[in-house]
Amino acid sequence: MEPINLFDYEKLARERLEPAIWDYFQGGSDDEVTLRANRSAFERIRLRPRMLVDVSTIDMSTTVLGTPLAIPVMIAPMRCHIPAHPDGESASAQGAEQVGSMLIVGSFASQTIEEIAAATQGPLWFQLYTYRNLEVSARVVQRAEAAGYRAIVLTVDVARRGKREKDTRNQFNLLKYSSLVNYSEEETSPIVQHLVDTWETVDWLRSVTKLPIVLKGILTAEDAALAAERGVEGIVVSNHGGRQLDGAVTALEMMPEIVAAVAGRSEIYLDGGIRRGTDILKALALGARAVLVGRPILWGLAANGREGVKGVLSILREELETAMILSGRPTLASIDRSLLKLPMDWTST
Amino acid sequence: MEPINLFDYEKLARERLEPAIWDYFQGGSDDEVTLRANRSAFERIRLRPRMLVDVSTIDMSTTVLGTPLAIPVMIAPMRCHIPAHPDGESASAQGAEQVGSMLIVGSFASQTIEEIAAATQGPLWFQLYTYRNLEVSARVVQRAEAAGYRAIVLTVDVARRGKREKDTRNQFNLLKYSSLVNYSEEETSPIVQHLVDTWETVDWLRSVTKLPIVLKGILTAEDAALAAERGVEGIVVSNHGGRQLDGAVTALEMMPEIVAAVAGRSEIYLDGGIRRGTDILKALALGARAVLVGRPILWGLAANGREGVKGVLSILREELETAMILSGRPTLASIDRSLLKLPMDWTST
Amino acid sequence: MEPINLFDYEKLARERLEPAIWDYFQGGSDDEVTLRANRSAFERIRLRPRMLVDVSTIDMSTTVLGTPLAIPVMIAPMRCHIPAHPDGESASAQGAEQVGSMLIVGSFASQTIEEIAAATQGPLWFQLYTYRNLEVSARVVQRAEAAGYRAIVLTVDVARRGKREKDTRNQFNLLKYSSLVNYSEEETSPIVQHLVDTWETVDWLRSVTKLPIVLKGILTAEDAALAAERGVEGIVVSNHGGRQLDGAVTALEMMPEIVAAVAGRSEIYLDGGIRRGTDILKALALGARAVLVGRPILWGLAANGREGVKGVLSILREELETAMILSGRPTLASIDRSLLKLPMDWTST
Amino acid sequence: MEPINLFDYEKLARERLEPAIWDYFQGGSDDEVTLRANRSAFERIRLRPRMLVDVSTIDMSTTVLGTPLAIPVMIAPMRCHIPAHPDGESASAQGAEQVGSMLIVGSFASQTIEEIAAATQGPLWFQLYTYRNLEVSARVVQRAEAAGYRAIVLTVDVARRGKREKDTRNQFNLLKYSSLVNYSEEETSPIVQHLVDTWETVDWLRSVTKLPIVLKGILTAEDAALAAERGVEGIVVSNHGGRQLDGAVTALEMMPEIVAAVAGRSEIYLDGGIRRGTDILKALALGARAVLVGRPILWGLAANGREGVKGVLSILREELETAMILSGRPTLASIDRSLLKLPMDWTST
Repeated sequence: MEPINLFDYEKLARERLEPAIWDYFQGGSDDEVTLRANRSAFERIRLRPRMLVDVSTIDMSTTVLGTPLAIPVMIAPMRCHIPAHPDGESASAQGAEQVGSMLIVGSFASQTIEEIAAATQGPLWFQLYTYRNLEVSARVVQRAEAAGYRAIVLTVDVARRGKREKDTRNQFNLLKYSSLVNYSEEETSPIVQHLVDTWETVDWLRSVTKLPIVLKGILTAEDAALAAERGVEGIVVSNHGGRQLDGAVTALEMMPEIVAAVAGRSEIYLDGGIRRGTDILKALALGARAVLVGRPILWGLAANGREGVKGVLSILREELETAMILSGRPTLASIDRSLLKLPMDWTST
Repeated sequence: MEPINLFDYEKLARERLEPAIWDYFQGGSDDEVTLRANRSAFERIRLRPRMLVDVSTIDMSTTVLGTPLAIPVMIAPMRCHIPAHPDGESASAQGAEQVGSMLIVGSFASQTIEEIAAATQGPLWFQLYTYRNLEVSARVVQRAEAAGYRAIVLTVDVARRGKREKDTRNQFNLLKYSSLVNYSEEETSPIVQHLVDTWETVDWLRSVTKLPIVLKGILTAEDAALAAERGVEGIVVSNHGGRQLDGAVTALEMMPEIVAAVAGRSEIYLDGGIRRGTDILKALALGARAVLVGRPILWGLAANGREGVKGVLSILREELETAMILSGRPTLASIDRSLLKLPMDWTST
Repeated sequence: MEPINLFDYEKLARERLEPAIWDYFQGGSDDEVTLRANRSAFERIRLRPRMLVDVSTIDMSTTVLGTPLAIPVMIAPMRCHIPAHPDGESASAQGAEQVGSMLIVGSFASQTIEEIAAATQGPLWFQLYTYRNLEVSARVVQRAEAAGYRAIVLTVDVARRGKREKDTRNQFNLLKYSSLVNYSEEETSPIVQHLVDTWETVDWLRSVTKLPIVLKGILTAEDAALAAERGVEGIVVSNHGGRQLDGAVTALEMMPEIVAAVAGRSEIYLDGGIRRGTDILKALALGARAVLVGRPILWGLAANGREGVKGVLSILREELETAMILSGRPTLASIDRSLLKLPMDWTST
Repeated sequence: MEPINLFDYEKLARERLEPAIWDYFQGGSDDEVTLRANRSAFERIRLRPRMLVDVSTIDMSTTVLGTPLAIPVMIAPMRCHIPAHPDGESASAQGAEQVGSMLIVGSFASQTIEEIAAATQGPLWFQLYTYRNLEVSARVVQRAEAAGYRAIVLTVDVARRGKREKDTRNQFNLLKYSSLVNYSEEETSPIVQHLVDTWETVDWLRSVTKLPIVLKGILTAEDAALAAERGVEGIVVSNHGGRQLDGAVTALEMMPEIVAAVAGRSEIYLDGGIRRGTDILKALALGARAVLVGRPILWGLAANGREGVKGVLSILREELETAMILSGRPTLASIDRSLLKLPMDWTST
């Protein structure tokens, strides 16, 4: 039977992937407290639907930094897609294109920047991890710019890799499954030579590209305000899928304070835990312009390549449409905080 | 052994019904978060009983829009009763009549409006889903009026059908079990031609009937206030048994804000999750004039036809009587908010 | 091995009693929500122990309505003890006497008022259920008075028996196990002829006895204030062990508002859920002068007759002593609200 | 495979120790409510990490009462280590030394004060339980002082031993496994002759030693203020690992009120439930200068002697380093309350 929700894709992927890859995709850090919280946070918000609104036409199209999307959903940057399916990032980009979503290509993608760009007509963003040798990083940024990518997403929450115990127990070596095709051999291993980013890294990035800059991994009003002050165009509120600091707050619960601190100066996206159309609705109602979806895309890719990615995104589109209809919110603009009954401890902020 | 509570009837029904019908009756939408919340909401309210009150005589009779009821309980409109028992809505109406309750006949009932009316001396209301061709809808409303039905209940929370995944997996087709006997063949399928209702639909309804109008599916103070302003006579606070927007608030938790917004201008009924006499007591104490009971009626019907419906309602009457006695509330008028210890997050509203 | 806590006695009793008796002792009403809450309420309170206090001498002796007790614990009135052990109430009274506690004899005790009085040197109270023929009730009150009982405890929360579904399923008939030895045959069955008590019943009781009056089953500040105004000497805050109104508040959570309402005019006792010395400590810190213990006494009685009752009470005494030492509270007077960290929703009252 | 977290050491220890020893190490008092709360308290706090901070250098070195530590972790005093491993306290001290932590030697250590001091170059503190014959206690304090120990930790929460039911059921006799090597035979058994400490005991201790004094077992602002007023140099906020008063508050939740009451006059350490680097981070952010770790040290010792202790502490150091990096707190001074999202019921204090 056709998958009818994202959890069906999860089951399919689990059947097809070898256990160590599966653990790598699914795992969080330490005791996975934050990983679990990313889901339970959504269940803590309840919806206050309005009735008798004219919902005969639903419009969920939007733009992110000027790039039009048919649905307010992007594919989160994930290290590399080939371990999920041999067609890799190209297939993910094509699946996204067919639904009007967009892939954010990872810094350590398993296909080259140019190869992915050639595979799709749709828009692309490029996610960046920096090397200590910043010239190496400047090079990939400029290649992305040349290949038509429309924004650079600097991930700011990996000053060190989180403690993923499943990978350690599996003696998992990702490089066995996917090599760093976007870097030459002289450009040394990213693990050893990873730069500890600071706000100066953001300034440096501004100096080497004309593309808009997005920071991914912000979790506090303080950092969001600093980003906005510095003119950063976009902010991805994210705890890295529960893979970095265990015990960290969820993106969802931090939206109220972050939205207030940014005050419209930057676009805000939410990442983490999206599995249902109503999850997207909740994120948008809290002020997200769009959401990022990660693991479910790999499930779709593993299950059925490009068609699986399209399938996952299509289910989300269909579910979001139903949620907009049933909550009396026919446009993205009509989705506001009055739709939500927040937990008591969120509203006090 | 005789069933002694509603859960006994649930078990009996489960044994007798084919699994796909059972799933159709019991299921909610998406992850069934709201379905479960409909029950847990009742457990979150605690009762503050008064002692040494004269409870030697208990009076639970009331009126709903002028229609007298021996117990403050109505049978919620449900699509069709024949899949539960061949005697269908007629048996439900007869069971209700014997206890002094009342059936709200569904728009797509499995017996005709007139046939059901002929089967009972008791009062009836008629629930309406509109067709795009409003003449078709006007026709059934006027037939109900002619047949002596006393109110029209417009369901306002089904602008689209919720995502009931069990039905999809079962490839469930309700029409196999029950046809649309109240419509001619030219009057096309309700799914394709369903009207997206707006407040103009309410105005239209007023224009085609002299009966009082009840809106079913209101969940916010905002919509309740709009209904009251428009002179709607009754409001059913309901999330459609957890079958529409998953993650929606429960009727119970929204009562305080809705009761405040309506300020006595319309009668308010509560629907969803009633399984015990104390549940009714809690709903009444929050300001409901009466409650609607849905699935348990189908359990009773499946278990034992008319006698089963009567059995379910009799148990509720007996339990409510006990609850009124033990809480020191001998009349409906004496059941007020002082009876309740509400969860903290409800009282802040 | 010797029982080392009350739960050990519970296991022993379960092994020895026939299942229907066990269900009768243990059961609550409806879904047993309140029964479970009686235990979980204690876990919701945390203790703030003080250190370096001189706890070399511990004094837990007190008086209840002038009657001295070596420990602030009484045996709750329970219908009849013979179904637990052939030595019945006499054994319970003797077990209590040996530890300096006290039995409250039930209206429908399985031994006569005089027989129990003759069996013990210790103090006794008498619990009353009224008959419509108040002369019958006056007679037992006066017999208790004559036999040296020191107070009359009027139970006010049984205007109707709660719905104990286990008993119904077991077709349990208590009279098979214990007859109403304190009433003649002409004095008809208590179930049929039970009086619905009101505040006038309290006035009547005052008129037929010189003994102090205790009301058992109060759960609100409103009723506690009425009792205090009427000069009632003692109040047992109780939900009848979760056997009457299911969903009722717990005695523990209502203590703050009741203590405030009574303002010292009557003594206040807490009943329900006591299983550990720290439970007693929590009740005392909330303002109870003493606590009532019910089911555990029947466990002790079933396990080992008088010695079992003594064992249960001795464990509680030992545990309370430890709790007083470890919390830095060497006397009952030193046990106050500063010892407690209450749940947020209790402190707002 | 090498243990990668403290729970791995827990499993190893469980395999190696006889069940009665295991129960003695792991058990709490009564129903172990407080024991469990010691862990769940940490999960209730969420972290608000800052990004783009320069975390290229991490400094977690500190001092406790002037003694330098490479990591803000001490080994909690535990009665005796030999039952875990024949190398006993000496091995624990050596493991601590290698990581720059410190052992607090217990009053009833299974090796002599001098023997342990001779085994390590690292600093040591001495924990004291007093005898009624205070000369005996003065003697061990002065021996510790002579042997170079740097502080005396007076445990104040054992006026009586908590009710450890597992030990009772096991008929556990610790003296079978470890004798009181620091006392002569005339100096009678500590259980019988244990002194009930009061604030005068603190004054006495001051009079017999020049070493700084730490009180271990404080749980309230009131007692912390008294300690600070009396010039006590250090306070260990602790509920004795859930082994004394069951139902007692957790050290973690009491930190806000205690830190406020002490107002910098004494150093404050947290004891209880530390299992992860992020747990240390949370304790420090609440105002602890360092934390004490107990049971995990015995797990390491049981698993692999000195190397196991070193292993446990090394994992904590590594995890704390990761936590500091990922939360943007490169120094202990940068770890403050803004890092935390506290539960609602903690912040109201």
